[in-house]
Amino acid sequence: MTEPALTRLAARSGAAMRLAKGGSLKIVNIHGSQVVDCWAFNADDLEEWMSMPHTRNACRKLTPAIGESFVTTLRRPILTLVEDTSPGVHDTLIPCCDAARYRDLGYEGHANCADNMADGLKTLGIDPPPPPGPLNIFMNIPIGPTGRLEIVPPVSAPGDYVVLRAEIDAIVALSACPHDIFPVNGADATPRDVAYTLYPAADSAE
Amino acid sequence: MTEPALTRLAARSGAAMRLAKGGSLKIVNIHGSQVVDCWAFNADDLEEWMSMPHTRNACRKLTPAIGESFVTTLRRPILTLVEDTSPGVHDTLIPCCDAARYRDLGYEGHANCADNMADGLKTLGIDPPPPPGPLNIFMNIPIGPTGRLEIVPPVSAPGDYVVLRAEIDAIVALSACPHDIFPVNGADATPRDVAYTLYPAADSAE
Repeated sequence: MTEPALTRLAARSGAAMRLAKGGSLKIVNIHGSQVVDCWAFNADDLEEWMSMPHTRNACRKLTPAIGESFVTTLRRPILTLVEDTSPGVHDTLIPCCDAARYRDLGYEGHANCADNMADGLKTLGIDPPPPPGPLNIFMNIPIGPTGRLEIVPPVSAPGDYVVLRAEIDAIVALSACPHDIFPVNGADATPRDVAYTLYPAADSAE
Repeated sequence: MTEPALTRLAARSGAAMRLAKGGSLKIVNIHGSQVVDCWAFNADDLEEWMSMPHTRNACRKLTPAIGESFVTTLRRPILTLVEDTSPGVHDTLIPCCDAARYRDLGYEGHANCADNMADGLKTLGIDPPPPPGPLNIFMNIPIGPTGRLEIVPPVSAPGDYVVLRAEIDAIVALSACPHDIFPVNGADATPRDVAYTLYPAADSAE
């Protein structure tokens, strides 16, 4: 596989991209501590999107393992986790941060993943829908014995990456989570840059 | 509180109702083994609905405790769990069953919770949206140490009930889950009737 250049996704920002069936997306946690919210939509019907409840049902796990797929609201595979150099700790339980969340926390007007998703989709000329529940790549939400959810720093290391392969023509949106209040993005609660690369279908098939 | 008559919700069927702010809904597991999928929408804006991811974020648990609220996609309380005589095992992780799920399992045309929700909303003259991730009342989905999700019978006893109080004017839909393949609805995988009662706001305030 040829190695295309990495695209920097600046701390606190979002991006969206078209990913044709068979193409892959590599997301690199440059500093190891950054959460990346990820959404995927059927490029031919934006009302069909990657769904965490349907994915949990399909794989019978909280998060798919390598080789398993995230599925849509219509229970069709949309993204397959083909590589993951991190310990595999990602979150499917928590919604993306949004204006209401920060307002409730006392931070009116804070940058947030919902706006990042919307801004990313707008760059593709897409009128953004309300954000579906995201795949929170590298996010570490351990579940206590009583069902208590903790919010703790990622366990990924600098340079860890995941590769997701599109199983249908997809629109993918990413947000380098701007959270800087709880230790979502590392013990120092400091959002940082990540990077990504797209591999076209032809390259992926080499 | 006056005790209105129970309304029977037949095995495998759905219903929907308007629940004004302050009103309560009691859902009775007559046989103890039946799962009831539950959805709630802002009566004034059906695009705002009870969201399991936002609820988990708000209560920092997989499922709210007694006295805690389920919140909407806009992070506003919509239903509060005011009573629960069961051991409190409910599910917020799994989507409702739908036509695609049963087709994948080899049961084309099987009754399902998605259709039940839609049918219920239609009785109120509402054009049903795609089903949001439901609150699966009495559903027992233990999480294994590796994040594996099991599907096992409810731990509720015959006559156990929950009471949910509306915090805003709401539309609530219920489905007595028709699943009869896995032991979702008891070890004998047999869907059974449940019952419900509505308490108007005035009664709830007594």
